[in-house]
Amino acid sequence: MSDLTVYGNVFSQPTRSVLTFCRLSGIEHTHKDLNFLKGEHMSKEFTLINPFQAMPAIVHGTFNLWESAAIVSYLADAYNVDNQWYPKDFKIRARINAYLHWHHQGTRGSIVNYLVAKLFAPKFGAPELTEETEAPYKAKLEEWYQTFTWLLSETHYVARTNMPTIADVFAYNEVFNALPIMNLDAHPAIKAWFDEISAVPIIREIGQEAQEVYRKFLA
Amino acid sequence: MSDLTVYGNVFSQPTRSVLTFCRLSGIEHTHKDLNFLKGEHMSKEFTLINPFQAMPAIVHGTFNLWESAAIVSYLADAYNVDNQWYPKDFKIRARINAYLHWHHQGTRGSIVNYLVAKLFAPKFGAPELTEETEAPYKAKLEEWYQTFTWLLSETHYVARTNMPTIADVFAYNEVFNALPIMNLDAHPAIKAWFDEISAVPIIREIGQEAQEVYRKFLA
Repeated sequence: MSDLTVYGNVFSQPTRSVLTFCRLSGIEHTHKDLNFLKGEHMSKEFTLINPFQAMPAIVHGTFNLWESAAIVSYLADAYNVDNQWYPKDFKIRARINAYLHWHHQGTRGSIVNYLVAKLFAPKFGAPELTEETEAPYKAKLEEWYQTFTWLLSETHYVARTNMPTIADVFAYNEVFNALPIMNLDAHPAIKAWFDEISAVPIIREIGQEAQEVYRKFLA
Repeated sequence: MSDLTVYGNVFSQPTRSVLTFCRLSGIEHTHKDLNFLKGEHMSKEFTLINPFQAMPAIVHGTFNLWESAAIVSYLADAYNVDNQWYPKDFKIRARINAYLHWHHQGTRGSIVNYLVAKLFAPKFGAPELTEETEAPYKAKLEEWYQTFTWLLSETHYVARTNMPTIADVFAYNEVFNALPIMNLDAHPAIKAWFDEISAVPIIREIGQEAQEVYRKFLA
């Protein structure tokens, strides 16, 4: 048994990014699924691991850590990772980190709130969005399409690298979950990038696992 | 002349965090001030350095980079930094990075929008907040006080370290700018932490420079 445990559900975009990084880097780990619909992320046991009660979190030996991008960076140090996804070249890492810091307000801030308000909140009793209440979310997403297209324009990857990196994986996972509210056909550069990342076998595999959970959730 | 240039205004919290990190780590740099009131961050010249037109950004030799926390991490690599503010111990760095990733939505998300809506937007023609429009901002700030107090409860520092780190500097700079809308007296743990960080000579010095700009802006 590995001394690294990753806690979280494949439905969670950042959990998927951490699991994907482990698999892409050959980092042995135990994945402990958390059923968030049953509130397992709020259990006493998990709260000791991440008092924020957010997914993912890891325990490595006796060391606990949360925040997906910090976890990736930690694992790269702990397991001496130097691959295309998170190369040791510190200029490339800097560009990856710059994207990952922008990602919170830039990508997640533009997508996740809309996704929750449009698809998930009504399942828990919130009113359906109206044309009027949906408008500000739509405007923000439109702005994101423009910015993201520009981001991709330099090298075709989000961190201005010559190959896809873990930054692309983080961005990809957000778009993946948000496909029901997106229209990638109207944004060919984003669509081409999305399809390219989708085609990476390990990413496709984890995507299929997520799809299963997603289908059940939206059913 | 140094081959490192830091672009930004001391009024900008993340710019101050990068400048503070340089001074605390003895990293020689040229500081190129950007007068954002005159729109200098939107100039053609600066847009080439940071197409997002956001402060701070750096040019190191021929390498350009943005996003303050990614800049700190890059400078630590480039200048081989290993001090209390960003130690090489990768478990400590991981905790610092975890705070810095949380910081975007956690601290900035709870403070900056309120600050802008309450103090700055009305200076540029937006309506003053009413009791009703202010309520959601206030609620978010109240929640932040609770979370931040809890964050500090483990070791008295935001990244669960035994000494103040650059994570504390990032958090401190946000609180510093937001003092006019905050009530630290009601939150003694945050107040004690704030006063301790304030007392670090280099931090106090940069704070005084910021105060000057701030005073002119609010005048």
